[in-house]
Amino acid sequence: MVGKAKLLKIYVGEKERFKNKPLYQYLVQWLKEQGIIGVTVFRGIEGYGEDKVLRSARLLELSSDLPIILEIVDTEEKIDSIVPEVTKMVPKGLVFTVDIEVHK
Amino acid sequence: MVGKAKLLKIYVGEKERFKNKPLYQYLVQWLKEQGIIGVTVFRGIEGYGEDKVLRSARLLELSSDLPIILEIVDTEEKIDSIVPEVTKMVPKGLVFTVDIEVHK
Amino acid sequence: MVGKAKLLKIYVGEKERFKNKPLYQYLVQWLKEQGIIGVTVFRGIEGYGEDKVLRSARLLELSSDLPIILEIVDTEEKIDSIVPEVTKMVPKGLVFTVDIEVHK
Repeated sequence: MVGKAKLLKIYVGEKERFKNKPLYQYLVQWLKEQGIIGVTVFRGIEGYGEDKVLRSARLLELSSDLPIILEIVDTEEKIDSIVPEVTKMVPKGLVFTVDIEVHK
Repeated sequence: MVGKAKLLKIYVGEKERFKNKPLYQYLVQWLKEQGIIGVTVFRGIEGYGEDKVLRSARLLELSSDLPIILEIVDTEEKIDSIVPEVTKMVPKGLVFTVDIEVHK
Repeated sequence: MVGKAKLLKIYVGEKERFKNKPLYQYLVQWLKEQGIIGVTVFRGIEGYGEDKVLRSARLLELSSDLPIILEIVDTEEKIDSIVPEVTKMVPKGLVFTVDIEVHK
């Protein structure tokens, strides 16, 4: 897979759950089942979203709800085909795509 | 907020300070005051910038000055309106924007 | 360096080695020797790639092979000039570029 492609980024909270599982772990499993080529997950050290509440590793009581970010790379068609389903699974999170050029 | 938008990325050092506070914490607070929709902060495990000095979690004496990255998403207008002020607050860091498509 | 530029992202495994060194450390050193302006390295908390094996901080036995991501920013010409060499050094990883606008 070389050439024009898309990077999909999904931002959720570490504590969010879906079908009895942490949401981000559910998403990784679901993306794998859809045949997505590669997924990488990161944990932020702090952040805030729509509710304007700062979750931070500095603030101990909130530290278990740090931001979790998924980076997914695949062809434009593949990414476009999963986005509608992804947005349904992420009621509070942010979902966006970026045009990229894959070299390897 | 769905459609064309901008991702703003800011790279600073963990030890940089501004107005008696760690710079990245000052930035998060300032971005919130400007009404920015969402901010996520990451800590890198190593990196170098303009001064070509490698800061790395492997090199203990420099480990408290690891790279800190802020990811900010908002409308094109909102991001463009804060960039001039942000660049003034980040004398040594890197600041760039990327066109994105927000789906949720 | 202000204006149009490129972000290069490289995804490798923490355990991958090149010339008797961890691959990502070799890459950072090599990028510095090429005169690349800035490099930041991140460690993910989990992920999978081509081989579809999930490496995760949750799964202890695989935790020492977490995803490592390098973010490199420079001019379009500079990034284009190093990409062919980078793809050779990263047999299993993902390499892509994104158009960006540098403000500082």
